[in-house]
Amino acid sequence: MTIKTFSEYFNRLKKMRKNVYIDGKLVDRTDDRLKPGQNVIRVTYDCANDSNFEDVCTTKSHLTGEKINRFCHIHQSKEDLLVKQKMTRLLCYRTGGCIQRCMGIDAMNALSVVTYEMDEALGTDYYERFEEYLRYFQEEDLCANCAQTDVKGDRLKRPHEQDDPDLYLRVVESRDDGIIVRGAKVHNTIAPYADEIIVLPTRFMTNKDQDYAVAFAIPADYEGVKLVVRPAIHHKRIKLHAPIVEFGDAESFTIFDDVFVPKKRIFMNANGDARETPYAGFLALLFAHYHRHSYTGCKPAISEILASASALVAEYNGIESTKHVRRKLSHLIGTSELVYAAGESSALHGERSASGTYIPDEILTNAGRRLAGEEIYNEYKILADLAGGLAATLPYEEDFISKETGDFLNKYIKRNPKISSENVHRCFRMIENLLVSDLAGVNQVAGLHGGGSPQMETITMMSRYDLEPLKDIAKYLAGINKELNRYERPPVTPRKMLEKFRDYNKIKR
Amino acid sequence: MTIKTFSEYFNRLKKMRKNVYIDGKLVDRTDDRLKPGQNVIRVTYDCANDSNFEDVCTTKSHLTGEKINRFCHIHQSKEDLLVKQKMTRLLCYRTGGCIQRCMGIDAMNALSVVTYEMDEALGTDYYERFEEYLRYFQEEDLCANCAQTDVKGDRLKRPHEQDDPDLYLRVVESRDDGIIVRGAKVHNTIAPYADEIIVLPTRFMTNKDQDYAVAFAIPADYEGVKLVVRPAIHHKRIKLHAPIVEFGDAESFTIFDDVFVPKKRIFMNANGDARETPYAGFLALLFAHYHRHSYTGCKPAISEILASASALVAEYNGIESTKHVRRKLSHLIGTSELVYAAGESSALHGERSASGTYIPDEILTNAGRRLAGEEIYNEYKILADLAGGLAATLPYEEDFISKETGDFLNKYIKRNPKISSENVHRCFRMIENLLVSDLAGVNQVAGLHGGGSPQMETITMMSRYDLEPLKDIAKYLAGINKELNRYERPPVTPRKMLEKFRDYNKIKR
Amino acid sequence: MTIKTFSEYFNRLKKMRKNVYIDGKLVDRTDDRLKPGQNVIRVTYDCANDSNFEDVCTTKSHLTGEKINRFCHIHQSKEDLLVKQKMTRLLCYRTGGCIQRCMGIDAMNALSVVTYEMDEALGTDYYERFEEYLRYFQEEDLCANCAQTDVKGDRLKRPHEQDDPDLYLRVVESRDDGIIVRGAKVHNTIAPYADEIIVLPTRFMTNKDQDYAVAFAIPADYEGVKLVVRPAIHHKRIKLHAPIVEFGDAESFTIFDDVFVPKKRIFMNANGDARETPYAGFLALLFAHYHRHSYTGCKPAISEILASASALVAEYNGIESTKHVRRKLSHLIGTSELVYAAGESSALHGERSASGTYIPDEILTNAGRRLAGEEIYNEYKILADLAGGLAATLPYEEDFISKETGDFLNKYIKRNPKISSENVHRCFRMIENLLVSDLAGVNQVAGLHGGGSPQMETITMMSRYDLEPLKDIAKYLAGINKELNRYERPPVTPRKMLEKFRDYNKIKR
Amino acid sequence: MTIKTFSEYFNRLKKMRKNVYIDGKLVDRTDDRLKPGQNVIRVTYDCANDSNFEDVCTTKSHLTGEKINRFCHIHQSKEDLLVKQKMTRLLCYRTGGCIQRCMGIDAMNALSVVTYEMDEALGTDYYERFEEYLRYFQEEDLCANCAQTDVKGDRLKRPHEQDDPDLYLRVVESRDDGIIVRGAKVHNTIAPYADEIIVLPTRFMTNKDQDYAVAFAIPADYEGVKLVVRPAIHHKRIKLHAPIVEFGDAESFTIFDDVFVPKKRIFMNANGDARETPYAGFLALLFAHYHRHSYTGCKPAISEILASASALVAEYNGIESTKHVRRKLSHLIGTSELVYAAGESSALHGERSASGTYIPDEILTNAGRRLAGEEIYNEYKILADLAGGLAATLPYEEDFISKETGDFLNKYIKRNPKISSENVHRCFRMIENLLVSDLAGVNQVAGLHGGGSPQMETITMMSRYDLEPLKDIAKYLAGINKELNRYERPPVTPRKMLEKFRDYNKIKR
Repeated sequence: MTIKTFSEYFNRLKKMRKNVYIDGKLVDRTDDRLKPGQNVIRVTYDCANDSNFEDVCTTKSHLTGEKINRFCHIHQSKEDLLVKQKMTRLLCYRTGGCIQRCMGIDAMNALSVVTYEMDEALGTDYYERFEEYLRYFQEEDLCANCAQTDVKGDRLKRPHEQDDPDLYLRVVESRDDGIIVRGAKVHNTIAPYADEIIVLPTRFMTNKDQDYAVAFAIPADYEGVKLVVRPAIHHKRIKLHAPIVEFGDAESFTIFDDVFVPKKRIFMNANGDARETPYAGFLALLFAHYHRHSYTGCKPAISEILASASALVAEYNGIESTKHVRRKLSHLIGTSELVYAAGESSALHGERSASGTYIPDEILTNAGRRLAGEEIYNEYKILADLAGGLAATLPYEEDFISKETGDFLNKYIKRNPKISSENVHRCFRMIENLLVSDLAGVNQVAGLHGGGSPQMETITMMSRYDLEPLKDIAKYLAGINKELNRYERPPVTPRKMLEKFRDYNKIKR
Repeated sequence: MTIKTFSEYFNRLKKMRKNVYIDGKLVDRTDDRLKPGQNVIRVTYDCANDSNFEDVCTTKSHLTGEKINRFCHIHQSKEDLLVKQKMTRLLCYRTGGCIQRCMGIDAMNALSVVTYEMDEALGTDYYERFEEYLRYFQEEDLCANCAQTDVKGDRLKRPHEQDDPDLYLRVVESRDDGIIVRGAKVHNTIAPYADEIIVLPTRFMTNKDQDYAVAFAIPADYEGVKLVVRPAIHHKRIKLHAPIVEFGDAESFTIFDDVFVPKKRIFMNANGDARETPYAGFLALLFAHYHRHSYTGCKPAISEILASASALVAEYNGIESTKHVRRKLSHLIGTSELVYAAGESSALHGERSASGTYIPDEILTNAGRRLAGEEIYNEYKILADLAGGLAATLPYEEDFISKETGDFLNKYIKRNPKISSENVHRCFRMIENLLVSDLAGVNQVAGLHGGGSPQMETITMMSRYDLEPLKDIAKYLAGINKELNRYERPPVTPRKMLEKFRDYNKIKR
Repeated sequence: MTIKTFSEYFNRLKKMRKNVYIDGKLVDRTDDRLKPGQNVIRVTYDCANDSNFEDVCTTKSHLTGEKINRFCHIHQSKEDLLVKQKMTRLLCYRTGGCIQRCMGIDAMNALSVVTYEMDEALGTDYYERFEEYLRYFQEEDLCANCAQTDVKGDRLKRPHEQDDPDLYLRVVESRDDGIIVRGAKVHNTIAPYADEIIVLPTRFMTNKDQDYAVAFAIPADYEGVKLVVRPAIHHKRIKLHAPIVEFGDAESFTIFDDVFVPKKRIFMNANGDARETPYAGFLALLFAHYHRHSYTGCKPAISEILASASALVAEYNGIESTKHVRRKLSHLIGTSELVYAAGESSALHGERSASGTYIPDEILTNAGRRLAGEEIYNEYKILADLAGGLAATLPYEEDFISKETGDFLNKYIKRNPKISSENVHRCFRMIENLLVSDLAGVNQVAGLHGGGSPQMETITMMSRYDLEPLKDIAKYLAGINKELNRYERPPVTPRKMLEKFRDYNKIKR
Repeated sequence: MTIKTFSEYFNRLKKMRKNVYIDGKLVDRTDDRLKPGQNVIRVTYDCANDSNFEDVCTTKSHLTGEKINRFCHIHQSKEDLLVKQKMTRLLCYRTGGCIQRCMGIDAMNALSVVTYEMDEALGTDYYERFEEYLRYFQEEDLCANCAQTDVKGDRLKRPHEQDDPDLYLRVVESRDDGIIVRGAKVHNTIAPYADEIIVLPTRFMTNKDQDYAVAFAIPADYEGVKLVVRPAIHHKRIKLHAPIVEFGDAESFTIFDDVFVPKKRIFMNANGDARETPYAGFLALLFAHYHRHSYTGCKPAISEILASASALVAEYNGIESTKHVRRKLSHLIGTSELVYAAGESSALHGERSASGTYIPDEILTNAGRRLAGEEIYNEYKILADLAGGLAATLPYEEDFISKETGDFLNKYIKRNPKISSENVHRCFRMIENLLVSDLAGVNQVAGLHGGGSPQMETITMMSRYDLEPLKDIAKYLAGINKELNRYERPPVTPRKMLEKFRDYNKIKR
């Protein structure tokens, strides 16, 4: 059976080499501070094994025909894109935020397309290697981190121009059996409790950046890899146990200290062939694209979680039916719907790439992800607005238990006589977690930057959108052109992306 | 052949009784000030007869199996909703704005659902009458105005509470062969060049408002009907002929001076049956709903037209590649995509009503229409921003032709040496039309209010959205509830609308 | 007596040479289409002669000690800046918009500072000439246009790089008694009914642009000057006479067809001295600065006029006390207050320049003007929102008078029984003027671009604001610097502007 | 000498009775978790004793003529209001946020006005008591908390309607020598390290709420008072010591367990006189008003601190000169300037109340405070945007020190070769504190709600703003009224507030 359980996954983690550092110490993957992140991953295993969710969380492998976890699947249809989006939304409700596991499968889908394109154009055999890896990935129901973002040094300089050449991860040595890489990748969510790390390039590369145009996958505890980890977790509860505090995040600053990668795990730049360099940008872009499409699933859920908490606290505060509260809730809901709609529409306008993998529309995906990013801080503002100051001034749980102050606090926290003090307390304690905590800050930043900030989506949209045919509308209406042919904004999926990519890199087919 | 041509349509207009008033005069339907509006309608006939557009502009009647203009079609599938949306977008490109004809078919779709529901619940025979009317409508390829908005008098009072009982249109007499109605309807776009006027209620009605709960269709030149019309058209061009000035709008303040409506044209309140009264609100809502879904087709086009003009003038001004211009264009494009996506997603989550007519999702449609309304003035701002002051200070066309000033103006209007003065002139002349004209003002107001202002969409969304299951997410995360069942925001289409409608009106089935 | 009356001013206009072109015809300054603009100017003369307004509209000349119209005054104190701002606000209430006459005095104030600076640094005698001109200006209570904006051709090229060297106004010949200039200036509000045209440079000039660095003043009917004028006025009323339609605007595209300017009227570049060139940018900037400060007076009034109409129509519509209406009115009011506050605060932090003229703070003035520009379209949206569709669909006034339709319209327009139909009609007729008219479009564009668009204010703010001392706060808090000296954002007035100007142009004193 | 030092203040704290609870434990006022808040207060003492700041931080008592800390001063002039605003801004720079001590003096100023008004109208002697208390307050240079916000129970019910009558603080017993009060106050910043607690009513009170209309001042360690405290502080640094982590906040949930208040410390409802009840609302309002005016000093500083950090990190990231960064910085700066300008303008339009105390304009103050509240989350967004993800994923300081990972992290964090790794680290560590921490969350919520949320400012503005004279502008322009008298928005200060207060409460003078 290729669908694994959480305990199978966790048993794998237990066996891994110790290479996780937190707060100056080398720790086990069973460290308590990693548990909240692992609990997020648990939901992805549990739901695949839950008959209520199996329609969205599992599917059939196009490789083996086996039933697999959808987090291991290469999208074979528009429907697959739609269901992935839906799964993401539904699971996020259960974790109160980011489901984390999407990055692995987003990386795999991007690799499926680009390795195929390379093979076709250059006669390489990356797609075969990729399929072999995918088979293993699906069979073991693996959980992968995608390590994309380089530390980037001086942002005005390209990789090869940096004072320190290691500021982008690079191939330092090419051998018959593989390559040796050096560098660091940052913002690696999930890495300390992932099975695998999939390394992708972070940007377009010029000819001079050839050493930096590299992609591969390795086990997360591989020789030479160090994960310096910052967990973001909630205060434990004493009595008021609640799911919200069981979930958290851990971000890795991942160091590659001259790591050897064997041939079969390399998906780009295995042999130092300069013709592969331009594909780095294409791969970078395509991972970002899949990842942004995943955001059209999770971000709506996050808006809805914030709306849900807002509605609940508005009810408890007795202001649920006032006009301004309705308007603000409706804004949260509207944003959620619009972002989700963008993802669905994007799937609907998706297209099949040469490899068979489906790719969603780029304009729509970016428009959706951008709106989510633009709104994230405003959404927190709405929750803070409706909750009032108490979320930020709530005494600690111990004070609610203490003999000397507990009764007072429970008496004075009471609002609607029909709602128990405990429930009011639970509600505000949760909102405290959502608004006033390390994790709240991380979630805000992630909501803005994860998958690329609104700034990046604007750039992507505008580099793909063809303004010339659009201008034809104005030229026709102004009488500059005599005719207006039937104009439709074309889907911006593989064909268009590839064309632009080839044009840009002057690649002939 | 049931697909008619513009000249067939126009010949019908020529034969109509004179009942149009403009600027204090009774005028023919061939009056020059109505031509720009008729030119908009022309596009709907021309494209249905154009092989380039026939896939979107025509379809097969579910009644007769005949090929019909899609503007006469009752949506039989999600696909129908998607294609209607697409057609709306494509045709708007060609008219530089509102396609106007959608209101008729939106009214027809709403009637198809509600007459069926009434018959089912009350044993009436409205649906049969409706089908008969629809058959005629499709055969003749008719163009209809939907007269919904009453003048409403004191907005704090219900219809029956008004000092003057005529401030909402009402049945003043019920006869064996029909009813006599009195009142006025406003904001009736298209009415002076429509074949038919379809009258629908404007709001929910209480028992005491029974006389006001009425729906029917009559020819636009019917006895007792007076159309007091305000056209909004562009200045004619002398030499710089351009499509933009050929199109315009005319709004009617329509007076019903004791108009007799025969039985077969009445779709609600034909016999003074009080049980029908609650359906007034349902019909009002459903027309608004279809109309808002149409807006998810036209509003994206309007954003794109503004983006198109913005991109063109930015090119002519030589600033096309600056960052702030790219960002602003991208905002226009993003809004267009999001609104369109909301409409598509809404179609995707649409459902079949008992009558067989498909209804799009209400939350998604309203979220999309709302965003368009919220953004409309901002979109004009962006065009004004990129065009600069010249759109507002451009001398008249005659001055560009005049011997004494023409050469000077043409010399000094020149920008990029590669763009002729004439084209620069054409571009700014068009933007003057878009920004600085009666029609510009009308389009802004229509962009805000047409189909209901953002305020109304918020109210609609929140009256349909079920907050209780949403709150369950927060209750689960806070530990207030122990379990979270699989939650998905349910599609908000016929079932849900009907349920709420029945609950509200305490109707049992 | 140096305070003139409207009729004295108008008599001057009557005597002027015919050089105004409208719609291809050469017309008199008594042309009806110029009357609405002249009516605006009338308010500035009437109020100076009205005891109710004399405290704000008149003051004492620092040159002659005579009582003068404040529109002819050089600001001698912070109080002068505050009163000018107040006068602007109060007079705009009476014209329903822009008071137009500020540009002349803004130009004069800018000249007072820059001519003095030039004389001090270069030993020229411009300030003396300026004072002579000012004396005449004050004695005759003149009304001046400031012609600043060049047509600018290809915006990516500097003046001297243009294909056609005339695309910026320039000196084509230098003679002993004066200079000959050629070019065109655009967006010249007031020009066809101004006594004088004051020509200023539009931007910073490099050494190679020396011919373009020129400033002077000439009578508006001067030999070689052609004013190609676009008036924006309201439809005349038949019976419902109302101030709103009496006021309007006229914009001139002003052609300088080899115009001779005598020495005494030249304020820069009289003798082809290259050392003066850098002062062009300083003068351009300083006029913009005074003009933006004037906007902190007029824009609040415009927000209040829109708020006033919004409040009135909300009352008539019976929705005045609803929450969303209060919120929207309060937004208009808040914007007005913030912009006005920025102007006051700017005056408070103003400083005396070497010439004695007071200059307001640049950061504050730009922050205020920017907010006004950012909000202008939104403000129209609010009025449209509260008025509803009728402002855009209101039949013409004749239809309200006509026997066949008048009674119907008056019956059906009625809302609150206590408000007469005529008053409802008057209210919507005014809002039609405000929202749906050529002038409405012009006012929107002017609200955005007049005095420089938000884009320009951002650039100005950031080119003056010193980020380094600001960063010291962060450096201190982060522990990068050990100390934080007392930091205050310094006033950004003459000293700072001059320093930056000198640094930029490498001018030594 | 009435100006005290931090150590004098701190010595007072040390002597206080233990009544502070944190995390279930009764703690000393020397508890480490209170130190960061005390360090904020330290700045107010240090600067008053620092010749660099003495011009803003000290002034002359109008009571005694002694030099006093401005935090103990009753505003005697517009200048006093301006300087208080300036002091607030300057001191906030040094603490990286809220200066906390303003609430005490805001409460004292409100009391000075209202006690005087009561005495005048009712013949009471509260002002005398107040002056006595003020004398002590100034002499000892006291630091006071203002406890205003009640827990409020069911927000739809008035105090006397609550199920539990203690949900608003109230007089439970009136004795000859004083009163006994019961209840709780929340969001009491500073309380655990304040000398005094000044209790004020939270809202308007009806006749039936008489017991709740009470105001008084007591020592913070008074018998029966329990402070349940939630501190928000930063992680301590190991090596990278920095001011930002030295400062913090502590919020008290303050319980009044039948506390006896002696006569001389009661400022309202000392004798159960029902005529005093309406003054509760006036006092509530006036404290809020002074406090919002204080926010026009601190909020600009907070915007500038965020701008400062944004500018620094943009420099370190090498993107300082890109357009979008300039625009975003300029937005932060513009907001700061506008809010500050609103406060200055408000002071300028301030008026003297009968007691001699100056009161700033209410419309302007609220417009300024509201903008700050509306923008706060957006400002955090801008910092997060420019900082990038690292602020949220930065490994702990220990990992930068650790042998195994430190060198790697310092190598890879490097950007511009001229900026040391340590400084980059310091910069991001500070931004982590600003964005991703309990205190960050508290600051966001406080930025929104402190002094009243934007919702409250809108309500206050609209309840004071007189729409009728404003509408006269529209009535004149529309021709509804024939004349427009000179209209100016009147200052909204004591006269207007009192009038409205008296009208509302039907109080005759």
